[in-house]
This record gives sequence, C-alpha cells and structure tokens, in this order.
Amino acid sequence: MVHTVAVIGAGPSGLTSIKACLDEGMVPTCFESSDDMGGLWKFKEVSEPNRASIYRSLTINIWKEMMCYSDFPIPADYPNYMHHSKILKYFRMYAEHFKLLQHIRFQTSVKSVRQRPDFSRSGQWEVVTENKDGQEERHVFDAVICCSGHFNYPNLPLKDFPGIETFEGKYFHSWDYKGPEDMYGKRVVVIGIGNSGGDIAVEGSRVAEEVYLSTRSGAWVIRQVSDNGLPVDRFNTRFFHIMLKLLPMSFFNWLGEKKLNSMYDHAMYGLKPKHRFFSQIPVINDDLPFKILSGGVIVKPNVKEIRGSSVVFDDGSMVENVDMIVFATGYNYDFPYLPNNAIYKSGHRVGLYKLVLPPNLEHPTLAIVGFIHSDGAIMPQAEMQARWVARVFKGHKKLPSNQAMIKAVEKDTKAIEKNYVVSKLTPIQVDFVEYMDNLAMDIGVQPSLLWLFFTDFPLFWRVFWGPVTAYQYRLMGPGKWKGARRAIFTQFDRMYQPLKTRQLDPQQSSTTGRLIKLSLTLTAGGAALYYVHVHNPTTIPNLLSKFHLQTV
Amino acid sequence: MVHTVAVIGAGPSGLTSIKACLDEGMVPTCFESSDDMGGLWKFKEVSEPNRASIYRSLTINIWKEMMCYSDFPIPADYPNYMHHSKILKYFRMYAEHFKLLQHIRFQTSVKSVRQRPDFSRSGQWEVVTENKDGQEERHVFDAVICCSGHFNYPNLPLKDFPGIETFEGKYFHSWDYKGPEDMYGKRVVVIGIGNSGGDIAVEGSRVAEEVYLSTRSGAWVIRQVSDNGLPVDRFNTRFFHIMLKLLPMSFFNWLGEKKLNSMYDHAMYGLKPKHRFFSQIPVINDDLPFKILSGGVIVKPNVKEIRGSSVVFDDGSMVENVDMIVFATGYNYDFPYLPNNAIYKSGHRVGLYKLVLPPNLEHPTLAIVGFIHSDGAIMPQAEMQARWVARVFKGHKKLPSNQAMIKAVEKDTKAIEKNYVVSKLTPIQVDFVEYMDNLAMDIGVQPSLLWLFFTDFPLFWRVFWGPVTAYQYRLMGPGKWKGARRAIFTQFDRMYQPLKTRQLDPQQSSTTGRLIKLSLTLTAGGAALYYVHVHNPTTIPNLLSKFHLQTV
Repeated sequence: MVHTVAVIGAGPSGLTSIKACLDEGMVPTCFESSDDMGGLWKFKEVSEPNRASIYRSLTINIWKEMMCYSDFPIPADYPNYMHHSKILKYFRMYAEHFKLLQHIRFQTSVKSVRQRPDFSRSGQWEVVTENKDGQEERHVFDAVICCSGHFNYPNLPLKDFPGIETFEGKYFHSWDYKGPEDMYGKRVVVIGIGNSGGDIAVEGSRVAEEVYLSTRSGAWVIRQVSDNGLPVDRFNTRFFHIMLKLLPMSFFNWLGEKKLNSMYDHAMYGLKPKHRFFSQIPVINDDLPFKILSGGVIVKPNVKEIRGSSVVFDDGSMVENVDMIVFATGYNYDFPYLPNNAIYKSGHRVGLYKLVLPPNLEHPTLAIVGFIHSDGAIMPQAEMQARWVARVFKGHKKLPSNQAMIKAVEKDTKAIEKNYVVSKLTPIQVDFVEYMDNLAMDIGVQPSLLWLFFTDFPLFWRVFWGPVTAYQYRLMGPGKWKGARRAIFTQFDRMYQPLKTRQLDPQQSSTTGRLIKLSLTLTAGGAALYYVHVHNPTTIPNLLSKFHLQTV
Repeated sequence: MVHTVAVIGAGPSGLTSIKACLDEGMVPTCFESSDDMGGLWKFKEVSEPNRASIYRSLTINIWKEMMCYSDFPIPADYPNYMHHSKILKYFRMYAEHFKLLQHIRFQTSVKSVRQRPDFSRSGQWEVVTENKDGQEERHVFDAVICCSGHFNYPNLPLKDFPGIETFEGKYFHSWDYKGPEDMYGKRVVVIGIGNSGGDIAVEGSRVAEEVYLSTRSGAWVIRQVSDNGLPVDRFNTRFFHIMLKLLPMSFFNWLGEKKLNSMYDHAMYGLKPKHRFFSQIPVINDDLPFKILSGGVIVKPNVKEIRGSSVVFDDGSMVENVDMIVFATGYNYDFPYLPNNAIYKSGHRVGLYKLVLPPNLEHPTLAIVGFIHSDGAIMPQAEMQARWVARVFKGHKKLPSNQAMIKAVEKDTKAIEKNYVVSKLTPIQVDFVEYMDNLAMDIGVQPSLLWLFFTDFPLFWRVFWGPVTAYQYRLMGPGKWKGARRAIFTQFDRMYQPLKTRQLDPQQSSTTGRLIKLSLTLTAGGAALYYVHVHNPTTIPNLLSKFHLQTV
C-alpha cells in the first residue's frame, strides 16, 4: 500500500496532487525546481530553459467558476477571467488554506525516477533530486506523481520553413514572448493561430507597423464575452452535455458554426478552417475580429518559404521587409526524468490509462497529472485526476488488468481520433465534462441527477441547467465537501460580484418595452382566443373557469 | 459676389473646403499653421498647444465607406476601420488628386479675421496671418471659411475635483496621451467614458496594475464588429432612417438597448446610463466589454474628491495609491481669431444657421465648416457643408432673412434638446443622415428615391437598403459625379477586399444545415398544406395550378 508519494512540480497540478495525497492520508513530498509555486502561472521577465513561460498581459481564458479547484472557490471579488498575477494569488491562498507549503521542497529538481530493484514486489521508485547547490539526493517513494507540465519545450519546426536561415530579421518562439515592446514600428509575422498566436498578433498590432497572422488550417474563434455579456463557459451546462450525447454531432457543429458566423463570418474574416467546430478546441480571442476588420492583424495562409527579409505564403503572396517572425507553433512534451519505456504512444496520443496511468506497469504507482488538453481549465481536471489516482494508490479504486487497460487506451485513442483533429501537438485532448464525469464516476463522486431530483430539487435544478462547475464533484462520495452545495448556489453571485463597481440607480423600467410586450401578448392571446372560440365556442368559458388571466 | 476665399486650416474640413471653392470657380487660399495637412489626423509624438492631438494607436471609429469624401472612395484594399496613418495617406491622395496643395500656405497661422470697414457694402474680411518667422501679413478676402477644428482646447474641469491640488501622482488630459508607456505597473484612474476615455482605459489596462474608469453618467457602448462581422455603420441605411421618422423614438430606444444588452448587459457591466440609447451618440469600443469582464478595467462612478494619492468616488468607495489620473473630459471650442460677436450661443449650442453660418451678419461671407458632432464622420459632413456654403457664396443658394435664420437656429436648438442629452461639450450635435439630407436638399443634390425607383431600380435598391454613403449625394444636381453610381455598386466590394488575405477552399456545403432547413421547411409546409386542406379542400389544387413547388 502506498504511503509516501513524490510529487514532481508545484504548479496547479502539483499543488492539488499534494492535497489529494494528504486527503487520503498519504505523505507527499513535492519537488519544485524553481523558487516558487504556480508553475506556468509564475510570470518571469525572462523565460527559463525547460520551463513554461507566459507573457506579461496573459489572462486565463476560462471563467473563474470553471477554473477553480472544487473545494476552494475563487474570491467573489476576483474578476471572471483572471490575469496571471491573480491566478498566482489564488494558488497561494489554496496552498496556505490546505497547508501545502510545508510539503514542497523548492529549488530541487528531479533528475531521475527509476523503479527500485524490488519494484515487482514493492512498487517503489527511486527518485534522484538535485538542489540549487548541485547536491544530489536519493529518495525512495511508494509512488510518484509527475506534474511537470506540458508547455516546457517549445516546438520550433524550422525545417518546415525553407529559407529561414536566410531571414534577416529576428525570429523566436512564442515561449520567448513577454510583451510587444520590441515590435514598435516593426513588420511582424506571427505563425500559428492558437491562443498564443492570436494574443501576440493582437497585442503586437497595437504598436507594430503591420502584423500578419499566418495559419495553415484556420480556426474557429470564440469570444469570452458571450450572450448578454455572460462568460461563455457559463453555457457549458450539464443539460448541453446530455444533448451532445443525444443528438448527432453534426447538428451541434452546424449550430456552433452558425452562432460563431453570426458574430463574425469566419469565411469573410479569412479564418474559416476545414475542420468542424467541435473537431478541435476553438481559439479564444475577443479582440481578434476587430483587429482583422481594422487591418491591425492581416490573416495569411501558411508560410511557404522565407527569402532574406521576405516571407512568401502558399498563395504566392509575399510580405517584404519583415523585421520579426514569431513562431506560435505550440509545444512538445517530455518527461526527461522518467525511464524511456514509461510513456508509450498510442497514435498521436500518450498511452495513459484514463490519461493518468501508464497501463503497462506491474504496479500502478506512477501517475501523470495535469497533462491534459481540453475545453476546460487544468486546475479542476488535474484535481480530479489527483483524487482518482490517490484512490488508486490507496487501493480504494481497483484497476482492470494491464491488458484491459492497454485495450482501453487504444479504444479511447480511436474514439478521440474519430471526433477530433489530432496531431502530435495535442497528445492528450479530451472533452472536459465527459472526462471529468468519467473519472468522477470511477471514484464515486459523480453527482446523481436522479437522487438530487428527488431529494434536493433546487440543487438538481442548478446542477442540471447550470454550468458544470467542479463543486458538483464534491456533493457526494469520498472527498465530499459540505460547502459544495452552497458554492453551487452562489456561483452566479461570484460572477456578478466583481462587476458591481458602479452602482446604478434603481432601474428605470422600460415602459416602451413593456407596452410592446403587452400589446404583442394581448394580440397573440386575442387571436388565439378568437380562433378557439370560432372553432369550439365552449372551450373559452371552460378554460376561464380553470385559469385566471395574468398580465405580463 | 464672392471670388476669393480664405480657408483656415488644412485638416479634413479645410481640404474639402478648398475643393468646394475650386469646384464653384472661386479662388481659395488655405492657411495652415503647422507644416502638414491632416489636422487632427496628423500624429505628433508630443502634443502641441492649441492643436488637436491623437494617440499612437488611434483607429477611426467610422467605416471607410461612410467616412470618405463623396467623390473619392478610399482604396479598396484599405481596412474597413483605418489607423490614423492610413487616414493621413488618404488625405494626401485626395489633395493630390484634386490639386489642392498649391492652395495651401503651410506654417502660416491666422491671427485675426475682421470685417472690412466697407463690410456692409462689400461683405469682405481682413485676414491677418503670421508666418513661422513671425512676419505678419494682411489679406483681403471676399469670404472666410473657418476649419480650425474643435478638439484644440482640452476641457480640464479641475474645480469639479476637489483635492486635486493634493494629488501626489501625475495627472493630465487625454489630449496629452500618446500611449500607455508610462502606465507600466501603475494604478491609473481614467475620468470620462467618451471614446478617448474608453480607448485609454483599455490600452492602459494591458500594462497597468489596475485601471479604473470613472463615469458620471455611464454610456451605451457599441461594437464596430456588428452582426456577421459587418461594420456596424453598414446598418445605417436610408430605410432605417425612414423608419426612424415613422415610428416613435421610444421604440428604437427600446430596440437599440435590447440589442446592446443582448451583446452585454449594460447594467451588469456597470455601464448603463440614465439616458436612452438615441439620446446621445454612443461610445464605440470593441475591447471594453472583455476588459471589464476580466477586471482589466474597473468601472467606477463619478469622482467625489481626491485626497493625496487616494481617489474617492460618489458611492464612498476609494482607490488608494493612485499613480496617474487621466482626464478624458472632452474639449472646449474657441475661434480666437474671430471677432467676439461672430459666434453666439443658443442654449448649449452654437448659434449657426445650418450649423455653418452666423445668422446675424449683413453678408453671409463667414462660415464654420467641420464643427460638428454626430454619429457620422467629419469628412462627408464637412464636405457637404463646404458644398453648401460654396453655393451660398456664389449666390446659387438664397438664404432667408437674418431674422428667419435666427429663428431657425432657435427652433433647431429646441429640436435637438428634445431628442438629445446636450451639454457645453456637445455644442453641435446632429443626426448624421438627417443633417446631410437637409443640406443636400437645400442645394439640390439629395437623391430622389422616387425618380430612382422608376429610372434606375438597381440603384434605387442600393440607395434604399444600403448604408447612406456620401456617394448618394453625387448622383444628381450640382457637383454630380459620374463615378457615384459605380461607387455605390462597388461599396461592398471595397468592404470585402481588405479581408481577402487568406483564400479559402471552395466552401464545403454544410449538409446538416441544409438537411435541417429542408426538413423544417417541409414540416412547416406540410402542416400548412394540411391545415388549408382540412379547412378548404379545394384550395390546394387551385394553388398548385398557379405555382410550382420549389425546393430549398
């Protein structure tokens, strides 16, 4: 049975893994190579090798109620989409509240994780660490959770850009981007229309002379400010996910694309991709459409070649006097400290059972947590994985045989390849809610709609129609949190709270609007009554005896 | 009869005034105090006293087809909303094409404009200018057109901000703002939610620690990227303006507010003003909503007082450690070179007949052009004013008596005060289309819908349903331009052109969408046919004999 656990990395996944171990009575030791927690979300003015890096202006693109850990709501007055500085603050609160800090050894990097000679029997691992003074240390752990992230190794596919060696300007990966300072008056080409590419193009366009955004395959781009100004994630409801299962995907693709095009026609804006809306996680960018319409960002096709200071595109068009190329071409992943055979590939995907466990080990005592790519935030997903793996470590959750797990991995790969456009850059794509539900079901924390319907209808209502916030996975089962129900009831309060910064006079009622609604209702009602009366003169008196008319 | 005309200022209004004079066979001399044309749109790194000033990132908020001069469309490949650098280029093309440059005397400022002793007889003016070496020169002109603009004198109402003298940080008017460089890591309060205030708050928020946007009365904020991604001005159609006259304004207010709130609820976002949508020209800002939702910009009520480095708001809330206050509090106007009695006030408005002519002069030989505030761009409005005034100068357009003109001014003031929220900062507010039509009617260049309907239906169709682009005022009458019809037919081509930067594969047809549409149509059609058949069995065969069914 697992007692001691090494957690590698104190980012969002590491923190919640420490907590999950503590919750199950295990003893975690977290090794963090840098001097602070937060991982990716710890902004540094200069990118550091083999570490994730973010830019100064980065704001997370997941709504705060959908990104928080399930038992630790984000303070009500924090904004709905948080700047990285706020996210780091939130992590500090989380670590403090659950007393995680004492389990973290900062400035200690993990050099290797190897099975102990007696692994077949013990399932134990030898972990070699190195502190800032270069001193190595050997530890033995019953289990290891790797939370070292997947944005550490920039993917810079220079060989796909013939002539790059002749380029006279400066080029770099988005990993190196901190802000637009160097772009003043420059001519910039950004390659790749992921979230980073979009952000950098938009930000650069405010100071650069011209910004070209080159994309091979285009993208569906969504706004965070959705209908009525609500966060777009607010519509990621359980009801919607049930519908997703009941109706054909092509219907939702049609609906989603129609909706997006009604905001701005993706064909007109040169963005339209070949893939359907639900085949790939969309790009999130509120500012891009106006930047395109005002010429600040010029969308271009794939780069064909580079000639000196000119960039030639697939359609033969050319941009001259380019000063800067930014490769927003994503990230490769690597777990250099793991044995070579620990992680195998299944198609483009990583061969991990439930995207957590290498399925071919004699003992399930090695886990990858937070290595995930979906339409949801890492935090609740990593948390769910950590809860799941902690249950596995403790023996509460029985696993299938290795063979069965490997089969499950293959099946999962096929399912994903059917619905999504996959590539080596998206080794771990999932649907957020489906994945969360799946793990939750496994450890018995999935909210039972039927049970809620009969025992707590107001809660049922909110769980069914409301956004799938992670609090839902703390309502029942192991790890149940008594604050979960309240957190669900107050999730919209926390949405409104940060916006209440200018009090309005009690709203003047829109008399016209009311009058129009009233007259439409009366007209429609009158027509209906007349119709019923003409066709069946006895109906109306009967109806009237049952109901009484209400005004709007 | 007027022959020589002094044009004061070579900005957008001055340029088109020169042209209008030339078109009517007069001899204009334009005095421009700076060394370049463009007025406001000539960006300068440091603001110069008594001159308009813009910031580095400024993009015009009027669609290119609605902002261009009526006989000089903006190049097709220029973006739909242009950066100031592009606008200046456009002015240069205009000046070159119509050979205006030779009529401009740069670095020559006008010190005074006075009636000549024989004004009663001659209507002439004495204009005193000063060149860059300080040399004065006296000129006599038959008429004078003042195009010196209305964004030259920042309105800095410090007395409304008690304690400002104790403020420990830096404060300045938006007139002094060039870019967010000084805002890095700072705590900034922007006062005023006009277009400048909104832009500065949004731009500052990308680098500042916190940005507070204080507004006394709130605002309706619209997006330039409108339905389907079309420029919002595209919907400013003649049809819409006819409806505006036919239906009560309260209906349109209700409709407009409903539409805006469906994009983002102005009450939820703390923006909702007391005034109705059509009572004030809305603020245009595509980026503000997301900035508010993500906490980058925090909306606050009016500032009550300032205490050291703290800013206290009307609701009692306080922001501490403020480093910077930006007063985006608009502009005062002044024509220091004119006699004191030339411009009088009518309520908050300037007493100008048709917003062009002081109505109390013996001779109508003094005009103000481009001194206007509406939901349209200055360029076409100044052009229309210049065309009108040129006709007046030449005697082609007879004016009413002074008394009648003064009465008309008063009536106009009352009409505007009824429909708009007016203040000393909006001395010249009008409805763009109504105003353009009014002047156009006066000089006989208003397009006759009836005539078009019978003689050129395709053109009628575009004039009626299409945006009220200024080309419409070049279709007939004096100043008719033979390119106008074509310009109207190609206005949408010029809209699409700059967006065609990434060619798409021939669009895959959305089979699902078609199937859904088809089945809905068939269902509805079937139900209708069934209903008709049940109620009147002879109808369907009759109908079928007249029409034949069409598939979608």
